[in-house]
Amino acid sequence: MSAFTVEGAQDPPGPGPFAGGALGSAALRPLLEVVLEALASGAEQRGGPLPAGGPERVADEVRATVGAVLRERGTGAREALETLVGLVARGAADPSEPLCAAHLHCPPLALAVAADVAGSAVNPSMDSWDQAPAASELEALVCGELARLVFPAEGGPPERGGAPGPEGPKRPWGSEGPSGSEGPSGPDALVTSGGTEGNQLGLLLGREAARARGGAPLRVVCGANAHHSVGRAAWLLGLAPPVVVPTPAGVLTAGALDEELARGGGAPALVVATAGTTDAGDVDPLPELAAVVARHGARWHVDAAYGGPLVFSERLRGRLAGLERADSVAFDLHKLGWQPVAAGVLAVRDGAALRPLAHRAAYLNADDDTEAGLPDLLGRSLRTTRRPDVLKVAVTLRALGRSGLAAMVERTCAAAERLADVIAEDGRFSLYARPPLTTVLFRPRGLPDAVVAAARRELLVGGAAVLGRAAVGGRLWLKVTLLDPTVREGEPEALLKLVDEAVAAVVERGAGADGAVAASAEGERP
Amino acid sequence: MSAFTVEGAQDPPGPGPFAGGALGSAALRPLLEVVLEALASGAEQRGGPLPAGGPERVADEVRATVGAVLRERGTGAREALETLVGLVARGAADPSEPLCAAHLHCPPLALAVAADVAGSAVNPSMDSWDQAPAASELEALVCGELARLVFPAEGGPPERGGAPGPEGPKRPWGSEGPSGSEGPSGPDALVTSGGTEGNQLGLLLGREAARARGGAPLRVVCGANAHHSVGRAAWLLGLAPPVVVPTPAGVLTAGALDEELARGGGAPALVVATAGTTDAGDVDPLPELAAVVARHGARWHVDAAYGGPLVFSERLRGRLAGLERADSVAFDLHKLGWQPVAAGVLAVRDGAALRPLAHRAAYLNADDDTEAGLPDLLGRSLRTTRRPDVLKVAVTLRALGRSGLAAMVERTCAAAERLADVIAEDGRFSLYARPPLTTVLFRPRGLPDAVVAAARRELLVGGAAVLGRAAVGGRLWLKVTLLDPTVREGEPEALLKLVDEAVAAVVERGAGADGAVAASAEGERP
Repeated sequence: MSAFTVEGAQDPPGPGPFAGGALGSAALRPLLEVVLEALASGAEQRGGPLPAGGPERVADEVRATVGAVLRERGTGAREALETLVGLVARGAADPSEPLCAAHLHCPPLALAVAADVAGSAVNPSMDSWDQAPAASELEALVCGELARLVFPAEGGPPERGGAPGPEGPKRPWGSEGPSGSEGPSGPDALVTSGGTEGNQLGLLLGREAARARGGAPLRVVCGANAHHSVGRAAWLLGLAPPVVVPTPAGVLTAGALDEELARGGGAPALVVATAGTTDAGDVDPLPELAAVVARHGARWHVDAAYGGPLVFSERLRGRLAGLERADSVAFDLHKLGWQPVAAGVLAVRDGAALRPLAHRAAYLNADDDTEAGLPDLLGRSLRTTRRPDVLKVAVTLRALGRSGLAAMVERTCAAAERLADVIAEDGRFSLYARPPLTTVLFRPRGLPDAVVAAARRELLVGGAAVLGRAAVGGRLWLKVTLLDPTVREGEPEALLKLVDEAVAAVVERGAGADGAVAASAEGERP
Repeated sequence: MSAFTVEGAQDPPGPGPFAGGALGSAALRPLLEVVLEALASGAEQRGGPLPAGGPERVADEVRATVGAVLRERGTGAREALETLVGLVARGAADPSEPLCAAHLHCPPLALAVAADVAGSAVNPSMDSWDQAPAASELEALVCGELARLVFPAEGGPPERGGAPGPEGPKRPWGSEGPSGSEGPSGPDALVTSGGTEGNQLGLLLGREAARARGGAPLRVVCGANAHHSVGRAAWLLGLAPPVVVPTPAGVLTAGALDEELARGGGAPALVVATAGTTDAGDVDPLPELAAVVARHGARWHVDAAYGGPLVFSERLRGRLAGLERADSVAFDLHKLGWQPVAAGVLAVRDGAALRPLAHRAAYLNADDDTEAGLPDLLGRSLRTTRRPDVLKVAVTLRALGRSGLAAMVERTCAAAERLADVIAEDGRFSLYARPPLTTVLFRPRGLPDAVVAAARRELLVGGAAVLGRAAVGGRLWLKVTLLDPTVREGEPEALLKLVDEAVAAVVERGAGADGAVAASAEGERP
């Protein structure tokens, strides 16, 4: 590493400004200490799940603290880290706080964060072997393992094997790969930036398989409960908007899907199912959907961004039965996997399905280099330069083991159950349903949706709690997405007390429904 | 933060397993020390720019070290971090080493890596305000500043202002935004995962503007020198492959572009120019291209992933004159900005151009929440969950200031000049050209391309140096992409000695060109 000093880059002067090489650790150590102190004091100053005062007040503080974003002369590393890390910590909605539980936004494991530092410091880029010799091989190993977890060799899809399955002899299109001549090659997986990219890739692979087959363009079919990224992916890829099948009970049913596919008139269809909806954590009935998909010869992508990590648990993975029959499955380890963002995975049952992503760039994977044995990595992502997100995942898998991850997933589901119990027994609130995963929906009894929405904002703006919202079953609900495995004694009751107070404040102010708060019929789950 | 203990998550037992909250720093500190030690000893064991032995040997070591990726019982945080961080550091192509200089793969600043830890620990997700209150405001500030740096208020494009410019009165299509009714709103920028995503967005915005206009679909026109991601983006977006204009001199010329646009027959065109080609660092003649683009009423995207950060330097930003006339500009701070991956930016001259990215999801930006003042962030990216890459960028801008970043950019360009000087004076090698940015291409005199390619692999496999390759001007060249601001005394000579030895080894073995190494005519730049 170079020993020169850049003005402002070292404060106090240290062994050098870069994080890699033999001297990088010595350069990093004092700066990391500054960060740790700023994080701790920021969290202490915040003193809760998020800063009080709402968007304008937070924005004012950020602007006042930052001043000029780019000065002519720098303030030095120590000042910049103290100021901006402190600001972001003080002004965070911190998922490590029990009352920050709105979204699929997890508290990250310290060991995963620590591993991620190594990725930043060594800075491998995953687009060519000569930028990531060991990291690229590690990625291949981890991806293989994760793919086999989703698509275990045992219990594979009989209708795609040699003999026709119970759903009949029709073979799904596209399973032969784009060349049309090569056979299946076992499960594989890619690292993604999250479920959104996973869904994009699922649709893209479907689009390309349809193209290879010729004829009509791909028809994407999903439930009304599907993630918004499915429609956005279709738009991005230049496909027609997805055909949306109504899901009045919260899940895509086999009957409704069957009817819709029968209407398709032979156009190649890609069905997108969901294992863990964002609103309620609902899991579509995968075995029944698998049968319908197979009968119609459609392709099948499952958005398991939320529910996917149940595969770690022997006890819970039955809830995802049928997942192994999908063509592609997106799941995230930055949700029920406790990784810092990003740690997404797209797994495919047949690695040959990834061939449409093959791509050449002479400076990264020239033919003669590939022939000489240099691995070709460009087809592993739509990105070129790419962070080694796999390192933190590999460290987490190794440190916790399957049983450790299973325990965390199981405890989080159990915590959601306990929260649901407390709500169900509290006369002030209605519970939407038993939590299928870790999402608990509830609402104050006898009040309109506008009060629910206003109470959520009341909690946010007051800095008291970060809760989510979900419009399901024709009503608006408060949403707790639990991603912390422990709900400690008294926490559910404390949460409900806060909600009750917020509701009372809203009602007292006459906010919601244009100031007129009227009692309304109860909105239990239909 | 919860105080429970997950089996294997804490080793030795500490205050808790999560990185956030008030106790997160205490959980992180000992784990970070394990990482720093593993990084240092890994770099020492490697003892050079990359591990020796080539892909198979590295893969063998990775497989042997890792063993089972997912065991039933975990090994604990300390063991996992020591083992896997050590493995990745030992097996890295580390850009903090002077002889690792193949790609646009920079040594990251320690202060940026330290800042990135805070992003991981607090784990804001940039898709809604209630997951990132302060971080989202910080992102808005930094994006605004970066956009104004690319598109300064002074020196804006006269032909897009009130009065017609010198190129005539034709107004470019699409500049009125998709609604067709709203005026320009000043420069803006988005954070991306890199130039590849920046180019995707540039093409996507062009596609949507063409759609809003109705009529023929978008025609993408780029030089043969453009990055491979331009063609891949067109494919992703369902557009026709780009029309590729030959660039025999390495850059897209105004004359060739003019001819091609004249052939377009009125279809809406998006021109993609390059400010810093991956092969040679060439910068297209932006002022001349701007005039041609304006004359034809085309849209203009500039891929400045590499060259963009020259805007920090008063002395060098003249090389990018004309950039401020582009509709959109992609640039990366994980190249000449010394950030760990990822730190990309897409800047647009008129923020209204970003409107096609607007997107709604009831759980993230419900209308009533937006009306109540909660910021709407979904339109800031095609991703949903998104890491706060802006934090490390903000810390770097503040710590170094404009002058500090300018000094690093200028020193890196000067280092490339010095390397080029040494090569030019060395009779054994031909220099392709004076380096336009920080890329230096050279080749051993009198030997065929196959020897050049084999010598590069010889250096790689021997663990001696990581050099790149570039096929330009009809020949294959060795490529040094300097991203370290300092070339110390003797380093260029040492590099040339290594290359000379590798060439000799290849020639002696008779490798390259099917074993027959013949002298060939010199391949100076045409």
